[in-house]
Amino acid sequence: MSPRGYVLEESDLLPLSLGAALLGTGGGGNPYVGMLRARELLRKGASVEILPLEAVHDDDVIGSVGGIGAPVVSVEKIKQGQECLRALRGVEEAMNVRVSALISAEVGGSNSIEPILTAAYAGLPVVDGDGMGRAFPEIQMSTFFIYGLDPSPGAIADDKGNVVVFKKVVDMFWLERFARHIAVDMGAAAGFATAPMKGAYVKRVAVPGTLTQALEIGGTILDARARRHNVVERLLAKTGATLFFTGKVADVRRELRGGFAMGEAMLTGVGDHAGSQARVAIQNENLVLWVDGTPAVMVPDLIMNLELETGEPITTEMLRYGQQLAVIGIPAHDLIKTPEALKIVGPAAFGYPELTFAPLGAPSDVRASAEGC
Amino acid sequence: MSPRGYVLEESDLLPLSLGAALLGTGGGGNPYVGMLRARELLRKGASVEILPLEAVHDDDVIGSVGGIGAPVVSVEKIKQGQECLRALRGVEEAMNVRVSALISAEVGGSNSIEPILTAAYAGLPVVDGDGMGRAFPEIQMSTFFIYGLDPSPGAIADDKGNVVVFKKVVDMFWLERFARHIAVDMGAAAGFATAPMKGAYVKRVAVPGTLTQALEIGGTILDARARRHNVVERLLAKTGATLFFTGKVADVRRELRGGFAMGEAMLTGVGDHAGSQARVAIQNENLVLWVDGTPAVMVPDLIMNLELETGEPITTEMLRYGQQLAVIGIPAHDLIKTPEALKIVGPAAFGYPELTFAPLGAPSDVRASAEGC
Repeated sequence: MSPRGYVLEESDLLPLSLGAALLGTGGGGNPYVGMLRARELLRKGASVEILPLEAVHDDDVIGSVGGIGAPVVSVEKIKQGQECLRALRGVEEAMNVRVSALISAEVGGSNSIEPILTAAYAGLPVVDGDGMGRAFPEIQMSTFFIYGLDPSPGAIADDKGNVVVFKKVVDMFWLERFARHIAVDMGAAAGFATAPMKGAYVKRVAVPGTLTQALEIGGTILDARARRHNVVERLLAKTGATLFFTGKVADVRRELRGGFAMGEAMLTGVGDHAGSQARVAIQNENLVLWVDGTPAVMVPDLIMNLELETGEPITTEMLRYGQQLAVIGIPAHDLIKTPEALKIVGPAAFGYPELTFAPLGAPSDVRASAEGC
Repeated sequence: MSPRGYVLEESDLLPLSLGAALLGTGGGGNPYVGMLRARELLRKGASVEILPLEAVHDDDVIGSVGGIGAPVVSVEKIKQGQECLRALRGVEEAMNVRVSALISAEVGGSNSIEPILTAAYAGLPVVDGDGMGRAFPEIQMSTFFIYGLDPSPGAIADDKGNVVVFKKVVDMFWLERFARHIAVDMGAAAGFATAPMKGAYVKRVAVPGTLTQALEIGGTILDARARRHNVVERLLAKTGATLFFTGKVADVRRELRGGFAMGEAMLTGVGDHAGSQARVAIQNENLVLWVDGTPAVMVPDLIMNLELETGEPITTEMLRYGQQLAVIGIPAHDLIKTPEALKIVGPAAFGYPELTFAPLGAPSDVRASAEGC
């Protein structure tokens, strides 16, 4: 990777989507369909440059686009393709600007790929970074909004030609509320664009290098599989992730509520964890992991389920009774663990006021101080 | 009233709001609060000219604004005042035009007054006419949309400062769906603006003279009360309305569903109607009146409940057990009884596919052909 960035190759798409699926921490939507669409565009001659954050100029105008809806739906309802582009044009017109590059709000899951697709259509580069370093279920849960981006305007577009512009919203929570309900009307799968940002701001608040990180994680998984190595072990070594549980899915409860996939999964330990129980709470993404009733990892740290044998990232909509999983955790980026960030993406923001965020890497007695399950 | 129109006097406001309440056919929101706000503005020096339809020029640009939400809520949640004005600015900016006059989409209920308030703030005249000649519960149910107004753009604004622009909607049903859900988010009471129209189009499709009609109806009620005449009788004589039932409210079922007040009222006959039963179906407005199981009046014809003693229009949210009511009917304007119009505002559009619209004035055997209750 040169300081001038690199051009995305067709062979990058599979590892990128695989790594993004893992960083989706169970949610963020399945990037596979988006990956196929991106491959199609590259084969037709489109070219997308991935631009390192340091190559962004202070005066650049950076747009952010992504899909919005319920991941359960996006698997079955394939996008028309240009939803995000139409939403982008909506905010550009409302602000009377044109963006010079795009950035993902959310590297985890399908929203790693959506800006790449829009960039391919619009002939724009994509900045190597995002606003979450993972996936989160709601719009305001990105560093862009946490650190003060004006939430007006935003725009949402569907496959039928509808474009709704949130011209003036009082705060990012209103933006999320309006957009979520319109997304449900639009069939729970739509394209979304937030207010374009100055390059200087993006350089200050974006989680850096996360597209490349996804690419490397996916590459590790594919390489380990090709060499018939233990994928989970290779991933732990490569990423510094911690293995928290190995178990069999004993029960999955999941329902679509207000545009979100809400629920939980129960796991019965196998191998080193035989005799133990784990529970994972879900709002699109994995939120909290309890092992034998004690919180082991909690949002915003990353909780990821992998198929024990293949290392395949298992998103929440793929969870099935009987699957054997490894549950691993990775510390969240510092930008999403500040006091400001924890107000928006800490356990209390997700309905767990009884949990005090204990970051991965902190002494386990701190992490175990709040009990649940 | 000169061909150049007339300036609204403070003394016009009470009769106007009373007549509008009656033309609301049970819905359209209570115009009383809006009337008080209009009085305040006139007292502060605002002046609003009511412009006859024939005074509109073909090239004029006419805006249409109104409140959107559930009437049940608008009684309790008082508007900030400039919601409709902010929505109007939203569509003006989206279309890059400035309107030269306003028109009500719906003379019935509070939306007779909303354009007057917005006109007072913006220094615009109001056209004497509307798109319904009554009240209907949904946006697309106006002659403006029935006869082909492009539903893009529309805009909605609340009391907090949120403004959402429906920049491109596939059809008027999508506009209604999006706007209704955002209105619910906004607390079920918001200001709405539809796409500004050419004067030539408004002259062709607006129901003419309905503000003046409301003013005259209200004047008749107030005059009859002042003279201690029988208000219902005077109204029948003045408007050509037909008395269909006199009865006591025996039961009211009403619930807020998806932003609408849905339900029905049961009446037990009194006086000439002793021994008979009536039922009125409600979606914000009175939709169908059955007398002893036979449809007597049906949408889009106007079904209006008045307190038997005082002639006070009784909106659906005011219905109470034990009230003594006169139920009267008035034929809808021809513009809302064409085959095109009946597709949008006929009985089937309101969930009564078994009822074939039999207009008031047609032979009663036709009207009674479809049975219900």
